[in-house]
Amino acid sequence: MRSKVTVLIRLKEGILDPQGKAIEESLPALGYGGVESVKVGKVIEMIAEGADAAEIESRVRAMCDALLANPVIEDYEVELTAAREGG
Amino acid sequence: MRSKVTVLIRLKEGILDPQGKAIEESLPALGYGGVESVKVGKVIEMIAEGADAAEIESRVRAMCDALLANPVIEDYEVELTAAREGG
Repeated sequence: MRSKVTVLIRLKEGILDPQGKAIEESLPALGYGGVESVKVGKVIEMIAEGADAAEIESRVRAMCDALLANPVIEDYEVELTAAREGG
Repeated sequence: MRSKVTVLIRLKEGILDPQGKAIEESLPALGYGGVESVKVGKVIEMIAEGADAAEIESRVRAMCDALLANPVIEDYEVELTAAREGG
């Protein structure tokens, strides 16, 4: 089967997020108050092939550990969306 | 009300995604074949305050146009998750 896979990669709790901090400090200057705890992460989308959903998910998790995320400072979530049979 | 807001920012269809391309070309070398159409985007999470969900969403969309996204080459999705009353 082929499936669309969405991977959300975020900094772990407690890791400094300078990009989020910069956004948080810029927003009030642009007139947008009332915003806090801004965190910036990555979203990686792909079409992946595998025997079944469980196999695709475990392969994408291995890809995260090997290349997509930095497991020391980042957490990731893998979600299979819009599974497509055949292909 | 206060709400957690998740913003997904992706390159528009047809815009070259060199980061996605680099991942797509690196994966087979690491033993992960069967992956295509890799796209890399950003996820921005925040806690935002506003009168109601509609007002929060429209303010966050304005923030996207003003600072968070580049509307010329990027599309964004705004999603309110885990609305919290009070605060």
